[in-house]
Amino acid sequence: MLNFTFHNPTKIVFGTESIAKLNKLIPAQARVLILYGGASAQKNGTLDEVKAALGQRLVQEFGGIEANPTYETLMRAVEQVRTEKLDFLLAVGGGSVIDGTKFVAAAVPFVGDPWTILSAGAKIESAVPLASVLTLPATGSEMNNGSVITRKETKAKLAFMNPHVFPQFSILDPTKTYTLPPQQIANGVVDAFVHIVEQYLTYPVGGMVQDRFAEGLLQTLVEIGPKVLAEPENYENRANLMWVATLALNGLIGAGVPQDWATHMIGHELTAQHGIDHARTLAIVLPSLLNVQRADKRAKLLQYAERVWQIREGDEAQRIDAAIRQTAEFFESLGVPTRLSAYGIGREAIDTLVSQLEAHGMKALGEHQNITPEVSRRILEGAL
Amino acid sequence: MLNFTFHNPTKIVFGTESIAKLNKLIPAQARVLILYGGASAQKNGTLDEVKAALGQRLVQEFGGIEANPTYETLMRAVEQVRTEKLDFLLAVGGGSVIDGTKFVAAAVPFVGDPWTILSAGAKIESAVPLASVLTLPATGSEMNNGSVITRKETKAKLAFMNPHVFPQFSILDPTKTYTLPPQQIANGVVDAFVHIVEQYLTYPVGGMVQDRFAEGLLQTLVEIGPKVLAEPENYENRANLMWVATLALNGLIGAGVPQDWATHMIGHELTAQHGIDHARTLAIVLPSLLNVQRADKRAKLLQYAERVWQIREGDEAQRIDAAIRQTAEFFESLGVPTRLSAYGIGREAIDTLVSQLEAHGMKALGEHQNITPEVSRRILEGAL
Repeated sequence: MLNFTFHNPTKIVFGTESIAKLNKLIPAQARVLILYGGASAQKNGTLDEVKAALGQRLVQEFGGIEANPTYETLMRAVEQVRTEKLDFLLAVGGGSVIDGTKFVAAAVPFVGDPWTILSAGAKIESAVPLASVLTLPATGSEMNNGSVITRKETKAKLAFMNPHVFPQFSILDPTKTYTLPPQQIANGVVDAFVHIVEQYLTYPVGGMVQDRFAEGLLQTLVEIGPKVLAEPENYENRANLMWVATLALNGLIGAGVPQDWATHMIGHELTAQHGIDHARTLAIVLPSLLNVQRADKRAKLLQYAERVWQIREGDEAQRIDAAIRQTAEFFESLGVPTRLSAYGIGREAIDTLVSQLEAHGMKALGEHQNITPEVSRRILEGAL
Repeated sequence: MLNFTFHNPTKIVFGTESIAKLNKLIPAQARVLILYGGASAQKNGTLDEVKAALGQRLVQEFGGIEANPTYETLMRAVEQVRTEKLDFLLAVGGGSVIDGTKFVAAAVPFVGDPWTILSAGAKIESAVPLASVLTLPATGSEMNNGSVITRKETKAKLAFMNPHVFPQFSILDPTKTYTLPPQQIANGVVDAFVHIVEQYLTYPVGGMVQDRFAEGLLQTLVEIGPKVLAEPENYENRANLMWVATLALNGLIGAGVPQDWATHMIGHELTAQHGIDHARTLAIVLPSLLNVQRADKRAKLLQYAERVWQIREGDEAQRIDAAIRQTAEFFESLGVPTRLSAYGIGREAIDTLVSQLEAHGMKALGEHQNITPEVSRRILEGAL
């Protein structure tokens, strides 16, 4: 096991009727900005429920945060918080809204150009307190300190992490996911799955606990994956999906073990260039990456085959093949394609994707930093 | 899954050479009290290492905190903190020292009789900041807000929990466990095992994630149990034991599921009356309790049999029998007896134990509150 520090101060308030608890969770004198995405938060009544729970507090709204939240949009929220002297940010939505809210929280008190938080890792000394009401289980942003923001004008998709932007609390009510479109739920399953794999399918360092936890989360996703789509109002399955997605990226399973994240970095370019949903890019890249990196990941791929997929027949290569195939079939069974061709993307697109990776400094990806642009090219070619 | 709130702000600093980080973790102006137990912290050099890391800070010491820390001893520490105006408590030791430090932290600013914190659940408004350097993996106290204190004069062993007594941080260096006596390591394995079982072997509520995590922790203990004794300086095994023991009782696996804790309550009386180590009382009570409660726990016992012990042969009763037998054999394999007779305790002792349970209000134990004193009697009789 590698040395590590683990610290996650976010309070999780989980279950039915939990939005009403907002009144106790947010200071009585707070001047609140509610941040949200599209019309769904309004349509499904969550926004009204949140406002009702906030009672007599001063509350303003900022809607229109995009999937892949943009710097350009968020800077308007920063302006609103500064001008109106708001002092508590409440994200109501999924990972994009929460990621965006984290950036706003850090940018408001930032002295200088806030873009440097993303472009240059500028130091964040403080942030406006923030919290979330999660409506879409997927990214884990509700219980971590990471955020990914896109700059529209340059198509750059960049991340920052900072302890000041942990949500103070996050409310997770599984019934709020009942009305989500199936595609968003399927994306959430894939997103959580790949988050886990990025922290698990690396070289072994004796993190037995971390492995068991990762395998437990993956097994749960395999078990509930088809059901969360088939039975949208099955509370038990939606609750487990919500809790898995949070635990998939709250720092716990990645503490003390090597991490990969190459699938994410390559996937980001697919989103930036072709507008494919984040999770769907991961489903394209992961199976091919596991195949290309199978020598480096051999021990863990065999463990994954046995413990997650119960594959015990065949020689090592066959067991690894079967594990990768079952991973892809799992994604496909959720209606999530695993090939570039499903999006009409052919070999001609690969040069641009590889050069974009290079342009963004992604020249040595993976837990061994051996995924060069040439290896990324092979991964993309394997996913055609 | 049941509704739940999960909040654990303790920072874990895990690994080799981590004691040196104390200097950054504790405020430079802090007036520190180091609390510890017996001579081992001095003998093995940990105390000196801690003091060296604290540099020029004002540091005082308070030694002599017992296994099963007593109110009488701890009130002397409270006096020292008040008199010397100390403002940071650093526990160096195992669960007893950390539990004791939590009580001191809460008692120092408490207005009124601090015993009422334990005896009457008196409200705690604040606590002196505390942290720990863990030397004995077992109780999980290093990452939770619970504390169990014994009053010598009445043999009462009582608990309190409060958010103000979460350690700010805990340092977990597995190499600090190398010199522990084998009996303490064996006790630690059993203590962690039973902590997990108390939160897992209850009736099912669809907490798939919690079940998988609990099973993963149990499987890890089963795998490393014999090795942590046979190879005291095997870092990997000791590291996994340390992390399992922390995660066994940091609130995570118990969030959203029913909890039992009857084994602990009955075990506390065995410690109070007969001076048996805490963990060793659990090894006596648990197998018999699982047998007596087998109807209530049927579904989870079958799941436990299959997933933790790979028992798939036989009818339900046989599989449950085998799981309970293997649990007891696992404890025995660590040198931890599972029978009262191993301590020379016979049937004549049971009346007193049962009446002590009644005297301490333990009349309706277990996740169904159906372990009456009469059921406790049958559990103890089954452990003769």
